[in-house]
Amino acid sequence: MRIAVDAMGGDYGPKVTVEGAARAAADFGIEVLLVGQREKIETVLNQLPTNLSQNYKIKIVDAPEAIGMGEGLFSFYRKRRSSLQVGAQLVKEGRADALVSMGNTAAVVYISQKIFGPLYGIDKPALALLVPTLQGSTLLIDVGASVNCRPHHLVQFAFMGKIFMESVMGIDNPRIALMSIGEEEVKGNDITREAFERLAKLPLNFIGNVEGRDIYSGKAEVIVSDGFTGNVALKVSEGVVETLLSLAKKEVTKNFLAKIGLFLMKKHLKKIYRQIDYSEYGGAHLLGIKGTCVVGHGRSNCQAVRNAIRMAVETVRNKVQEKIQAELLRMEGIIYDLKL
Amino acid sequence: MRIAVDAMGGDYGPKVTVEGAARAAADFGIEVLLVGQREKIETVLNQLPTNLSQNYKIKIVDAPEAIGMGEGLFSFYRKRRSSLQVGAQLVKEGRADALVSMGNTAAVVYISQKIFGPLYGIDKPALALLVPTLQGSTLLIDVGASVNCRPHHLVQFAFMGKIFMESVMGIDNPRIALMSIGEEEVKGNDITREAFERLAKLPLNFIGNVEGRDIYSGKAEVIVSDGFTGNVALKVSEGVVETLLSLAKKEVTKNFLAKIGLFLMKKHLKKIYRQIDYSEYGGAHLLGIKGTCVVGHGRSNCQAVRNAIRMAVETVRNKVQEKIQAELLRMEGIIYDLKL
Repeated sequence: MRIAVDAMGGDYGPKVTVEGAARAAADFGIEVLLVGQREKIETVLNQLPTNLSQNYKIKIVDAPEAIGMGEGLFSFYRKRRSSLQVGAQLVKEGRADALVSMGNTAAVVYISQKIFGPLYGIDKPALALLVPTLQGSTLLIDVGASVNCRPHHLVQFAFMGKIFMESVMGIDNPRIALMSIGEEEVKGNDITREAFERLAKLPLNFIGNVEGRDIYSGKAEVIVSDGFTGNVALKVSEGVVETLLSLAKKEVTKNFLAKIGLFLMKKHLKKIYRQIDYSEYGGAHLLGIKGTCVVGHGRSNCQAVRNAIRMAVETVRNKVQEKIQAELLRMEGIIYDLKL
Repeated sequence: MRIAVDAMGGDYGPKVTVEGAARAAADFGIEVLLVGQREKIETVLNQLPTNLSQNYKIKIVDAPEAIGMGEGLFSFYRKRRSSLQVGAQLVKEGRADALVSMGNTAAVVYISQKIFGPLYGIDKPALALLVPTLQGSTLLIDVGASVNCRPHHLVQFAFMGKIFMESVMGIDNPRIALMSIGEEEVKGNDITREAFERLAKLPLNFIGNVEGRDIYSGKAEVIVSDGFTGNVALKVSEGVVETLLSLAKKEVTKNFLAKIGLFLMKKHLKKIYRQIDYSEYGGAHLLGIKGTCVVGHGRSNCQAVRNAIRMAVETVRNKVQEKIQAELLRMEGIIYDLKL
């Protein structure tokens, strides 16, 4: 298996992507194509321990341009030879099995969509993120790919989420819920209310609306939302955790006994933090396109890059894209009706 | 001052609303009108210590019906004599200065809107919630009153938020931000992008987009959002805190030293929890209507009911509604243009 890694992406660029990719190559026995500015990649590679850097499975593919984290979508047209676009092209041409990027999410989504094209039956792609819950994990779909959604887009997300959880996580007939602001059918905005009506009629294990607090409760295995709401929800979670940590630090340093308390709990608090830390679980799957793509958090460290690559490997091994396409074809009639 | 309290509202009904209201009457020297089923209210009142219950400032106003937490908006027409409607009518007729309810948010919003009517220049009401941040507090507007918003509604929310922070919190020219999924102007959905453009042209201290994580960072004093997104954001926060607490309990009970650690930190953790606990800060202000209304969390305890009443008292004392209306009239030309 061969994974193309956008070496220039992310807040830290090659400094973390190269080491993360090298570790993934060593740990999972796969090939990695580091796509980006050759010199910068080589500099980082040469600083790594030889057991990581001298791996014949690591190759560099030159791409002279890089898309910044704040750039708009027109960078796609201005920068034809960006690491992102060259990487996507490698996958398109069958020279790599999947693309992994920590870069500008909007750009990754746009370029992947343009180069791979949509799956038959899917109008908008969705970023699917597995979040750990008290009971296991829940797939939140979409967390930022498609920010303007109509009800039938949410229905398509539900189908993709279902197939993902079945094929990757081995969960049979996962419970699917709609992110809303109250459990009753009447709660929500115009879009979610119409989506609710449609979801209830389909051959899905649809359990109805859930609220923001249920992302982490494990009530459903798939929570469907438009990309705007999903992204806000995700970032609120990060903000709460960050705020709690700084409050705890501020509060605890005031008191000697509390400091001892914190010291005794440290190992356990770290374990909890890891359980909820976004960067630990790697990234989100971009579903609904003809190609495997994993989008990592901009702030990813080496470990997160390695984990994102592992996610791509698993998706390819489990033939997730193919399964989604097959299921969509099987559902063709139903999905066609839904658009009306 | 006289506050009408919907005694039947909330998950626990009179059991907590009556005691909360009695405490508020004692603590703030105000009159409270307990609106609801007389017998049920009297039963709870008689169980309270006499220094609370024998206060001549507590009066009962009979309202035979109650609107359940899951009821739809038609309850407004079916239940003309609900505690909520009778309470709102008391305010409308000038027999009370403000309404406080822990009830079904959708019903409180709908009934207040119907009975009080909108402020001149405001098309949709908004629930404004003060959340504590690392630097002070931020007003999140709207957290659930208006779930289908057009760009000009968001602009109206910005104005109301600004006036609220100036008149109640004494913050001069508060920084106003738009909740979105990235800081750049191009980030967001169609609605927020158009709202961004309009906000940037107005005489407001508009600092641009913020992300979900910034609710608690203190980057802005007012964060504007449609009611759907704002409500999801709020409930995600609650969910994260609840999840962290149960993870911590589970993790810590496994280990003796960690237990001692937790014991030593307990007082401090409680302090942090209070700082972020929704029920502590009482409730949200319903802005944009001709009357003062505070909506508390359904799960409010006595303390939260008391705090919600205090919020109503402060709003009336600071003449917030009048100030919002005056400012809207001053801005009339601008606001009219915005609707075009």
